[in-house]
Amino acid sequence: MIRFESDYLEGALPEVMAALESSNLEQTPGYGEDRFCESAAARIREKCAAPEAAVHFLVGGTQANFTVIAAALRPHQAVIAADQGHISVHETGSVEAAGHKVIALPTPDGKLRASQISGCVEAHWADATHEHQPQPAMVYISQPTEGGLIYSLRELEEISAACRAHGLLLFVDGARLGVALVCPGADAGLPDLARLADVFYIGGTKLGALFGEAVVITNPAIAKDFRYIMKQRGAMLAKGRLLGVQFGALMSDGLYERTARREVELAWKLRRAFEAKGWALLCDSPTNQQFPIVPDSALGKLAEKYSFSDWGRVDESRRAVRFCTSWATREEDVDALIADIERL
Amino acid sequence: MIRFESDYLEGALPEVMAALESSNLEQTPGYGEDRFCESAAARIREKCAAPEAAVHFLVGGTQANFTVIAAALRPHQAVIAADQGHISVHETGSVEAAGHKVIALPTPDGKLRASQISGCVEAHWADATHEHQPQPAMVYISQPTEGGLIYSLRELEEISAACRAHGLLLFVDGARLGVALVCPGADAGLPDLARLADVFYIGGTKLGALFGEAVVITNPAIAKDFRYIMKQRGAMLAKGRLLGVQFGALMSDGLYERTARREVELAWKLRRAFEAKGWALLCDSPTNQQFPIVPDSALGKLAEKYSFSDWGRVDESRRAVRFCTSWATREEDVDALIADIERL
Amino acid sequence: MIRFESDYLEGALPEVMAALESSNLEQTPGYGEDRFCESAAARIREKCAAPEAAVHFLVGGTQANFTVIAAALRPHQAVIAADQGHISVHETGSVEAAGHKVIALPTPDGKLRASQISGCVEAHWADATHEHQPQPAMVYISQPTEGGLIYSLRELEEISAACRAHGLLLFVDGARLGVALVCPGADAGLPDLARLADVFYIGGTKLGALFGEAVVITNPAIAKDFRYIMKQRGAMLAKGRLLGVQFGALMSDGLYERTARREVELAWKLRRAFEAKGWALLCDSPTNQQFPIVPDSALGKLAEKYSFSDWGRVDESRRAVRFCTSWATREEDVDALIADIERL
Amino acid sequence: MIRFESDYLEGALPEVMAALESSNLEQTPGYGEDRFCESAAARIREKCAAPEAAVHFLVGGTQANFTVIAAALRPHQAVIAADQGHISVHETGSVEAAGHKVIALPTPDGKLRASQISGCVEAHWADATHEHQPQPAMVYISQPTEGGLIYSLRELEEISAACRAHGLLLFVDGARLGVALVCPGADAGLPDLARLADVFYIGGTKLGALFGEAVVITNPAIAKDFRYIMKQRGAMLAKGRLLGVQFGALMSDGLYERTARREVELAWKLRRAFEAKGWALLCDSPTNQQFPIVPDSALGKLAEKYSFSDWGRVDESRRAVRFCTSWATREEDVDALIADIERL
Repeated sequence: MIRFESDYLEGALPEVMAALESSNLEQTPGYGEDRFCESAAARIREKCAAPEAAVHFLVGGTQANFTVIAAALRPHQAVIAADQGHISVHETGSVEAAGHKVIALPTPDGKLRASQISGCVEAHWADATHEHQPQPAMVYISQPTEGGLIYSLRELEEISAACRAHGLLLFVDGARLGVALVCPGADAGLPDLARLADVFYIGGTKLGALFGEAVVITNPAIAKDFRYIMKQRGAMLAKGRLLGVQFGALMSDGLYERTARREVELAWKLRRAFEAKGWALLCDSPTNQQFPIVPDSALGKLAEKYSFSDWGRVDESRRAVRFCTSWATREEDVDALIADIERL
Repeated sequence: MIRFESDYLEGALPEVMAALESSNLEQTPGYGEDRFCESAAARIREKCAAPEAAVHFLVGGTQANFTVIAAALRPHQAVIAADQGHISVHETGSVEAAGHKVIALPTPDGKLRASQISGCVEAHWADATHEHQPQPAMVYISQPTEGGLIYSLRELEEISAACRAHGLLLFVDGARLGVALVCPGADAGLPDLARLADVFYIGGTKLGALFGEAVVITNPAIAKDFRYIMKQRGAMLAKGRLLGVQFGALMSDGLYERTARREVELAWKLRRAFEAKGWALLCDSPTNQQFPIVPDSALGKLAEKYSFSDWGRVDESRRAVRFCTSWATREEDVDALIADIERL
Repeated sequence: MIRFESDYLEGALPEVMAALESSNLEQTPGYGEDRFCESAAARIREKCAAPEAAVHFLVGGTQANFTVIAAALRPHQAVIAADQGHISVHETGSVEAAGHKVIALPTPDGKLRASQISGCVEAHWADATHEHQPQPAMVYISQPTEGGLIYSLRELEEISAACRAHGLLLFVDGARLGVALVCPGADAGLPDLARLADVFYIGGTKLGALFGEAVVITNPAIAKDFRYIMKQRGAMLAKGRLLGVQFGALMSDGLYERTARREVELAWKLRRAFEAKGWALLCDSPTNQQFPIVPDSALGKLAEKYSFSDWGRVDESRRAVRFCTSWATREEDVDALIADIERL
Repeated sequence: MIRFESDYLEGALPEVMAALESSNLEQTPGYGEDRFCESAAARIREKCAAPEAAVHFLVGGTQANFTVIAAALRPHQAVIAADQGHISVHETGSVEAAGHKVIALPTPDGKLRASQISGCVEAHWADATHEHQPQPAMVYISQPTEGGLIYSLRELEEISAACRAHGLLLFVDGARLGVALVCPGADAGLPDLARLADVFYIGGTKLGALFGEAVVITNPAIAKDFRYIMKQRGAMLAKGRLLGVQFGALMSDGLYERTARREVELAWKLRRAFEAKGWALLCDSPTNQQFPIVPDSALGKLAEKYSFSDWGRVDESRRAVRFCTSWATREEDVDALIADIERL
């Protein structure tokens, strides 16, 4: 079975493994207070052009999401997300378990618009009984989205402006951030995120690390005492240096961006094959996730040899599916798949 | 600087690193539903003589503690722990953040006694206003304790009997369980824990893994839907197989026990040197943590070359300190330390 | 100003005030363990034909909702409600503050259907990643709904059957239950609720008491230790007997039903006047809340003399508004309003 | 049975009942936004010499405690209380259910000292691993204490100064505040509390109201959005005016202080009888709670006719018990009790 169902099916990039191996016997203090974390954080601050930002390394995305939200909100405050947002649908109510409502706004494509954020907040304050509802206080978006789309710089600027106009915090989930930095059409870089968001993270788990998300906090109110909240939420790794070592490797010599670029290129190679076959795409994703709409008959045959994710029935004879490339995807496997598609 | 301040200062055992390396490119499903986790769980069930037990792999100890407690208790229920218990003093209120009070009972040495558990519970129910207090519903102990002591089989049996007599769950934190299985005086094995506790874990982070705790659940009420609660609490690693791979290695060929045994041997070598020097021990720890009471003058000199943890002032001229050995401790470093102690 | 905007604008029924007055100097134990609570609970059990039910008196509706839900669910479990349900939109995220997601299902009219409950639950379990989502475990409905509609006995039976088929608990918010027992079309009585639901409450605040909700629990798993959870959530009144006294009065001599019947009659008198005037009704409410769609010009004039609640714009020239009758509504005020409407 | 076991055994003062009765049919907006609440709040601000203070009316003490604490703390922060403090031992873990640890400091008499507050906070920050512990952020004291003692103005000033020096909030539980304002030795008035604390409350439940606590908030950070948190925690009464009406009466014509004074006088009458009988007092309470140490033989006889609270065994032949006076205590009942004591 050749697997394309997600981008966390393998271990880590050779460079990451090598860094873990070469540092394995070095003794360091625990809990992220080591030279590897310090150095990786410094590189990230530099890449973000955010010399004052706090950088913390957490283990996973769900953990990063609820830890940030717990650190940022008072009990009566809620976070606005797209209805398809990861915290809305795929984290077992972890934000609610931290006490906060997720206000899920309907979107055609998983992307929030600045205008609907403003509309939601204005409606809240216009309601005479707004104290009987959770108070919108933060906006959560994913770059790229769960469905593989990206926000343009202009869209991010509009969303950030709407948040600041209404006193909301902006939090960007970057579990797959790398691909949004390098894919066709990408025009928002790390310094833009650092400038426009109050907090965001650079995902490692889905971009070549064994695990790890680098949380970048530019808003001092969220940064204050963040390590307490990390510890309380189980997000402070004893051997924290493992995260510093991995991000140190990823942030060196352009490895992170290079890896993302390769993922995207292989994904576009697949995309062109889908299009050549006449398969429509569920959405116009420029990233490492592609969502062709495939006839059932073809799906059956492909499934004998390849794995992919089901994204739901589209009509009587077709389903949308997701093919993902990762740092580990072999070009020869992509080529084999393309050949098999052509032969269908 | 040669470091003895804790047992999580280095990476992982060579065998663990090799297993990660050799499996690195294999594609597996995520979230712990892979062949490595399945196989490691099977070995653990076998070692525990608990064929029906649920085994789940979590990333760290604090996370394991609050996830288990959240899964086990209703909102008004509390967990009894020693006043020196890790959940009482060193997890930033993570159990309280999950909504539960930790009832910290005073102990001379960090070990709970069956009689004080019974006393606490009987006092609760005898109080006419017991509904105005949290209801004791679980007992949390650490084997070995945070101070390096172990519960004997007989003590565990008494505690378990007290719990069952009073309808309490028994949860054993085994962050350093390995050393309690092999150290001098150890007479309670994994099957005993599986038989006597409702849930316990086998610690990997502090015994040769990069990270990871294997939670063994024998009580079906706690096991039910445990994976939901793991996911909600950020305790379900995307590349879950990393935990299966590591525990697969640790649980093969006696590696876990062998590693623990070596740690203990080196710790006893140190202990004998402390005693030879005439330094009293704060407590009679048979495990990989040793707590000599050292004159201030000696401490200053040792600190130039070695790191260790401060455990508090004992009298005007002496402090208790902790020396820890780990899987990575080099015998030559122990010998150098001993030589330096002798020279003091 | 003559007020019709809600049914909690005044104090309590004369009979309730008299009962409070006459018992005022009697000494009783606190926290609901007094003869008044005991006696009122016994009457409620009898009226519900539920001799085994637990009956507890709480102060208010939001409090009753989150206390029941906290008592009933494990951390990863969620409650299904209509998108217009009170817990969905009007309790400041109190259910989320207790850690649980409210799964809000879309409804045209605020009433959940058995089929959509089944659909929601089946979709959950059919999803391969259901552990990444909160688990539906309870259904919350309001009888009558927030918009004044009632569930028929048949609808309740279908919902209850769907819940039991899927292992869900059924919780009925009866903040205005009285009017749903007596209004035109009502065919589900207290024994039906006790038989079909796991827990429900009989609202006092909106039906002639100063405050108070009588929670009736027929499911022993929810009843267990309920008083602990009441105390923990601030829902155990020190002078608990105030609730027993009030419900004792309401449950005597048919006062509760008689009060509800009068409210409904006055509401229908208003309704007929709206219809005579040619004002459509937003929904076909048989209860004490009526929702005429009124021309803006008429609204302006009515607002000089009467208060009512805005329910939103319907078209360019009309808004829906809510008129509520209460135990205290004077027939002469209703008549005056009707005369003014006729004169418009 | 003549009851002295607590001060919430009866309904409300005649003046309070009369105010409820006379306002019963008046229509007002709900949720505390009515003229009664407005007027009562104004009187309280005046009595506190705190024209900027926010005043909110909540139903009960446990509710007031956890609502204030939830409004004030971030998730990793803890509240310091005496080991005998009400939130430590008598609220079923409601503070923990809101996510916060109660740091219970040992006291000989239930009174916190400024020095131990400072010591606790300094120890926290001095610990290299303070991020692994909850951060002390608020001090909770009760005036009078649960055991009937009062803090002097000087003690309050020292505690307040310690809090401000360390950046802690000061919260004063005044469930029985009235008696601490008027009892022998009382030298701290409402303006002192408003000046020294960040938030405190004036208890009604135990001082002549049916129920109700007036929370006075002088710290704007806690006041911000407080009504949201009240609503979320079930602490916003639908007919909020009931609280305004009651506090309006209590705060008029010195009723509150007069009631407290009478309670204290009757308690001292009892106290003198205990002393005359040769019964030692458990503590030197100047308030409406008295704690004589009584021979078992005498207790048996008294219990035939009078109720009181058991406060625990003192030695082989004696127990401490609590006698409480309330607004409703009849002087003739006190005299009867005294006569019976003399006859023993």
